[in-house]
Amino acid sequence: MSEFCFGVDVGGTSVKFGLFDEKGKLLDRWMCPTRLENMGQGIIPDIRKGIQHKIAERGIHRSQIQGIGIGIPGQADKKGDVLVAENLGWENVALASELEKSLGIPVKVENDANAAALGELKCGSAKGVHSVILVTIGTGIGCGIVLNGEILRGKNGAAGELGHMHVEDAVKKKCSCGNRGCLEQVASARGISAIAEYILETTKENSELRGQEISAKKVLDAAKKKDKVAVQAVEHFGIYLGKALAACTCLLDPEVIVLGGGVSKAGQIVIECVQRHYRKYAFMECKNIRFCLASLGNDAGIYGAAQLGTGYFSPQ
Amino acid sequence: MSEFCFGVDVGGTSVKFGLFDEKGKLLDRWMCPTRLENMGQGIIPDIRKGIQHKIAERGIHRSQIQGIGIGIPGQADKKGDVLVAENLGWENVALASELEKSLGIPVKVENDANAAALGELKCGSAKGVHSVILVTIGTGIGCGIVLNGEILRGKNGAAGELGHMHVEDAVKKKCSCGNRGCLEQVASARGISAIAEYILETTKENSELRGQEISAKKVLDAAKKKDKVAVQAVEHFGIYLGKALAACTCLLDPEVIVLGGGVSKAGQIVIECVQRHYRKYAFMECKNIRFCLASLGNDAGIYGAAQLGTGYFSPQ
Repeated sequence: MSEFCFGVDVGGTSVKFGLFDEKGKLLDRWMCPTRLENMGQGIIPDIRKGIQHKIAERGIHRSQIQGIGIGIPGQADKKGDVLVAENLGWENVALASELEKSLGIPVKVENDANAAALGELKCGSAKGVHSVILVTIGTGIGCGIVLNGEILRGKNGAAGELGHMHVEDAVKKKCSCGNRGCLEQVASARGISAIAEYILETTKENSELRGQEISAKKVLDAAKKKDKVAVQAVEHFGIYLGKALAACTCLLDPEVIVLGGGVSKAGQIVIECVQRHYRKYAFMECKNIRFCLASLGNDAGIYGAAQLGTGYFSPQ
Repeated sequence: MSEFCFGVDVGGTSVKFGLFDEKGKLLDRWMCPTRLENMGQGIIPDIRKGIQHKIAERGIHRSQIQGIGIGIPGQADKKGDVLVAENLGWENVALASELEKSLGIPVKVENDANAAALGELKCGSAKGVHSVILVTIGTGIGCGIVLNGEILRGKNGAAGELGHMHVEDAVKKKCSCGNRGCLEQVASARGISAIAEYILETTKENSELRGQEISAKKVLDAAKKKDKVAVQAVEHFGIYLGKALAACTCLLDPEVIVLGGGVSKAGQIVIECVQRHYRKYAFMECKNIRFCLASLGNDAGIYGAAQLGTGYFSPQ
């Protein structure tokens, strides 16, 4: 009987590993740095070593391992080939087949935001529901969508690109995607800082943020203390994200919206603000959707990846 | 062996019926007026009679009939109970079970826009693909979404409510849904007329539309003749719909967008304008999605409903 499963989350700075039992319980967690040099050629060997080491350490037999699931910051196809993962320097990397060949264990590969959404749905704050939108608000905006228990990938693997929904005509600067006015430009950590800076520049309002180097954390902390500029900046963030989420739910009508990522660590102030604006714009039947904060934090990726590895949820 | 299937499309003015063979070929098509009086109590008996009459006329035996699929302008649950269909005066109507009891034939019920999307996907202009967004631009804006061959219904049956996506803060008038600034208010037939009227009122531009009662058809016809006011109105319509569709594809990444409904009958001018603006706002991987005009016209509903009746696609 298969007793174990590995979940791996390949990020831009570290590769996170998790060993899970067949019920999805996390037994062990470790990590190694992501070696980005030489177009990320060292990453696959590092994943292999990380798993081989744990297998040897625990005295696990190959036959006891159901599979390995891997989340990557990019797009993969059904076979587990990575089409592109810019932050790793990867293009057309045969991730699943290389690891399967060297380890003799089945491997599944998925976009990391999708894997995290699956993690929250199976083991985190959206446990027990069938459809969820996970939005991670960090430097950028990530999004994973699970509908009827299945990850939504889309024709080109571009489903769930909420961060690149056009929301603001007035933005003149280009987004990393090449367009202008993407949600990520105005409602990510960077977006919150940019809005606060704009208000400081264009008004004379007193603020503890004046003369400081602005960060989203500083803006959120100041907003909790009712600093007027900070409150205004957070309101703008809430309007942008609330409107975009209202667009999501009128199309998808999911059960839960989960907010994660660095910005969500500010806690209730983020949910309260986003939800209040969301309700103004949402379609009637979706106004009362449940909002919650991601509960697995940085582990959502390995939890979700492990679910892929069990083969219980096969990516579409 | 089951040889026949019925597809029924219940609209606000008429009930359309289709008799299909087991390959989905339309053998016969007929209709009756929708009796809206007395909270639409006459509609179910009329559907029953319409089907009984055809069965008798053709000498079909019950055992030869695989099922009946019905599209309704509202929301139904999995059992085929209609939760609400405002235009029919229906609330909590046990449509499927009443007909099953009286006819002895399995009945499935679906939202009409969803049924039409399934019809275009199985038998119309999106034949051969697995995921499609159908947008019908008429008096209002309808939308049906099929992903991986399955109709997307959502938790509350509110998936695909594209017409009620918030797109314009400047709209002060309430939409039928209770919100303000919905896509339907600015990019439906009524929306096109309203924009043209606004331009006529606020500018002194010469136009053949001046002094006339405005309709979307008149605006589109005038735009084809390069009337400046009409061209501007159609551009605005294209920007609104193009942006909203870009929001759809960055979330869903489907294979095809099908435009249907009265406004789409203006043909290429509509596709060209919407697609041009769509491309400006769409996420890179989705910019070149195929746009096409609905090919089944008013029959999309009965084609799609018949697909439900065959049980080949079971609604989620």
